[in-house]
Amino acid sequence: MPHIPLDERLPGIRGLAAYRTDTGRLLYELAEALLRSESTLPPAERELIAAYVSSRNECFFCVSSHAAASRHLYGDRRQLVDAVIDDLAKAPIDDKLRALLVIAGKVQRDGRLVSDADVAEARRHGATDREIHDTVLIAAAFSMFNRYVDGLNTWAPTDPKAYAEMGKRMAEEGYAGRFAGLVAGPETAR
Amino acid sequence: MPHIPLDERLPGIRGLAAYRTDTGRLLYELAEALLRSESTLPPAERELIAAYVSSRNECFFCVSSHAAASRHLYGDRRQLVDAVIDDLAKAPIDDKLRALLVIAGKVQRDGRLVSDADVAEARRHGATDREIHDTVLIAAAFSMFNRYVDGLNTWAPTDPKAYAEMGKRMAEEGYAGRFAGLVAGPETAR
Repeated sequence: MPHIPLDERLPGIRGLAAYRTDTGRLLYELAEALLRSESTLPPAERELIAAYVSSRNECFFCVSSHAAASRHLYGDRRQLVDAVIDDLAKAPIDDKLRALLVIAGKVQRDGRLVSDADVAEARRHGATDREIHDTVLIAAAFSMFNRYVDGLNTWAPTDPKAYAEMGKRMAEEGYAGRFAGLVAGPETAR
Repeated sequence: MPHIPLDERLPGIRGLAAYRTDTGRLLYELAEALLRSESTLPPAERELIAAYVSSRNECFFCVSSHAAASRHLYGDRRQLVDAVIDDLAKAPIDDKLRALLVIAGKVQRDGRLVSDADVAEARRHGATDREIHDTVLIAAAFSMFNRYVDGLNTWAPTDPKAYAEMGKRMAEEGYAGRFAGLVAGPETAR
């Protein structure tokens, strides 16, 4: 049971954003800016960074939902999402994305662990300053989202089909759209 | 040296917010909502939660600046800030704030560590649902800020006087005001 009274229809971050909407709006706008706005990193890769960090924090709701969004966005290549979560070193991804995920994994533990060598490795494979910046901020932001969702003991669906559906909506509606639907009321608050 | 090229005049989060202003604006608005907006927890206490989490993450810039802001806001009681950072169990604060700081410390490590007993203890000393919520979100948000600031290896002043001045401005201008000054240009970008 959640530590505070939340709308029982709304799992994870959704119940929290509805509980306090001024911060909820900012958090959804942050997710939109980080995961959907114009970037040389495709949304599929940015959702993967979010899912990878959430998997390392063992936040069940966050990893389930963002992995589902990443799978939806990758389409035919969807299986690489689970490969990354299972074993980053062996996953069938390009070297730039792997180097960025190594940086994200260090940020998840402690920002000070990111070394000059980690950054040089990412640059050697073509990562730009902005991509390095955005990777660090996505990893830091999910270190927040994971703690917020789990620190208040929010509920999470257990059925994988619920997340497949949620991931599809996250991919198609974006986070600004998701928040608008959330505050519009229960009819759309899936 | 920072991992990416940042304005050398701007330490910590300030250089990052100037580097990417759309997320910078959202992060400063989040800090404003969490640390300054209307609340039954005074800003001095909320800045103390931010400083306490930052001290546990050993983020030098964040703990130095938010401890300074908390000291400024506490005024005559400023010494309790360092007492909390040194040893929460012995610090001369009321039981409600101590219970909230225990929750914040658990969120800093892993949200799942916050127990029903921790929440019951806070309630027993008068904490409301909203205060518990806000404490968890402040602790989660500083788990992000700390990783963002350290993950990109931003520079931080070493002179305590620089932080005393910074904390005074943070206390008096608020974060919305600080961001407006930041984007207005170098003249005001202290």
